[in-house]
Amino acid sequence: MRDFGADHRWLSINTATVRKQNGHDWPLLQILDACAVRGIRAIAPWRDQVAAAGLAATARAVKAHGLKLSGYCRGGMFTYADAAGRQAVRDDNRRALDEACELGAACLVLVVGGLPGALAGKPVHKDIAAARAQVAEGVAVLLADARERGMPLAIEPLHPMYAADRACINTLEQALDLCDALDPARSGALGVAVDAYHVWWDPKLAAMIERTGRERLLALHVCDWLVPTRDLLEDRGMMGDGVIDLRALRALVEAQGYAGYSEVEIFSARNWWQRDGGEVLDTCIERHCRCV
Amino acid sequence: MRDFGADHRWLSINTATVRKQNGHDWPLLQILDACAVRGIRAIAPWRDQVAAAGLAATARAVKAHGLKLSGYCRGGMFTYADAAGRQAVRDDNRRALDEACELGAACLVLVVGGLPGALAGKPVHKDIAAARAQVAEGVAVLLADARERGMPLAIEPLHPMYAADRACINTLEQALDLCDALDPARSGALGVAVDAYHVWWDPKLAAMIERTGRERLLALHVCDWLVPTRDLLEDRGMMGDGVIDLRALRALVEAQGYAGYSEVEIFSARNWWQRDGGEVLDTCIERHCRCV
Repeated sequence: MRDFGADHRWLSINTATVRKQNGHDWPLLQILDACAVRGIRAIAPWRDQVAAAGLAATARAVKAHGLKLSGYCRGGMFTYADAAGRQAVRDDNRRALDEACELGAACLVLVVGGLPGALAGKPVHKDIAAARAQVAEGVAVLLADARERGMPLAIEPLHPMYAADRACINTLEQALDLCDALDPARSGALGVAVDAYHVWWDPKLAAMIERTGRERLLALHVCDWLVPTRDLLEDRGMMGDGVIDLRALRALVEAQGYAGYSEVEIFSARNWWQRDGGEVLDTCIERHCRCV
Repeated sequence: MRDFGADHRWLSINTATVRKQNGHDWPLLQILDACAVRGIRAIAPWRDQVAAAGLAATARAVKAHGLKLSGYCRGGMFTYADAAGRQAVRDDNRRALDEACELGAACLVLVVGGLPGALAGKPVHKDIAAARAQVAEGVAVLLADARERGMPLAIEPLHPMYAADRACINTLEQALDLCDALDPARSGALGVAVDAYHVWWDPKLAAMIERTGRERLLALHVCDWLVPTRDLLEDRGMMGDGVIDLRALRALVEAQGYAGYSEVEIFSARNWWQRDGGEVLDTCIERHCRCV
């Protein structure tokens, strides 16, 4: 197992972690500068942040700083209510793929979507099996494009509390079943993003990480589960502030041969987004050394 | 499949659903009266409500009204930090068993507990596997007493968002694995409570209900998952207000031969607990006919 205690060379910052500072949007290019001056070698930016900064300008800044992208957040949201929705989803995912390639991302992370309309508060039906079938179809279609472009797709199982509105793939086992169906050869074109927040509770976690194996372990995301958790979406904790045994999780992942970045992804409306962004990055570095 | 549309003979009211009316505690004996006058034939009371009303007085009222108990809420919370905690948990569960017997409950429902100390906001460790081992031990010990008393134990897998602080058994599969370990003969002494809110998201739901089988299907709880959900604990929805296909779930359960009560269990701090209790019971009856 790698020693993370001495330095932060394997730390990546998911830019949602500092999308706000002092309660206000922190522009992506400033985030990249702040990462670079701290010796952070990798990031994972969100599409809306890239769009606000401009794709070309972001790509230039990434290159100028010599930054790697541990992943690009995010494609997915495959579920739809009608034919127009289906086409819109396909087009949008193709654009996400283009952007991931332009930025040189290690993978395109997929948050697969829930019941159509649910994220807007108006689910059009209650048939989660149908939503899951649309997801399987959507990943299959995107995978063909992704293979051509050489961009791996990382399915991210989301915590079951997001099954209705954000992602109806909710366990590693379920994600791996889809990988088996679409890429039985384990080519590396399709795999999973293991996010501690989403999977830490799973009684089959160790078995499923073993089943994942090196070829499909495309990303490791870390943060912590707070007790109590006060909001379903924006109350993730800084590593060390919650109950997840992050080092044990990393041991499982590294036992499979994973040697990539450990990406800090924290949404925290009531805490970290209210602070100075540089202070948050410094805390991420310190906690990454001590707790991951 | 039974027809629930014409009457509410298979409706049970978990008394947490109306533990408050107009924002204030509604005494249990008044709840029982209000259920009885509406022709509700079964309830599932909570221990704290019974304690407030008095066990003997509650037992008398249950008998006088001819009410059945679809379950007794609840035993469990098996995890502990030290030897004194272990003994306290055992003693408390034995008392819960006595009360369930005194009230003639169909089963004692077990919410098994999370990381020791977590419910009070101070988890003493992060080892969820150790907590799960304590749960297995605690259920095994209680099962010996429960067999003697002829009181079935119903393990209730709780939604994974409660893994840290309320229950580290989070899927039906996990609960059934424990049943297999402790009661391989499927004697009926140990089974599960299937609560729609906790299990609706599970991609293996249909397979696991089939695996449960009649002998281990001890209770069915219903409510709904709201989109968005605003609180992790006290924002359950009335049947029909959310995204759970309750009729499909009941079909799965009844296909195994389940013919017991369908128990409405709603915690709703911002909505139903703020209303008149009689109005809430009337709504439960109407929605149970229409949506379950």
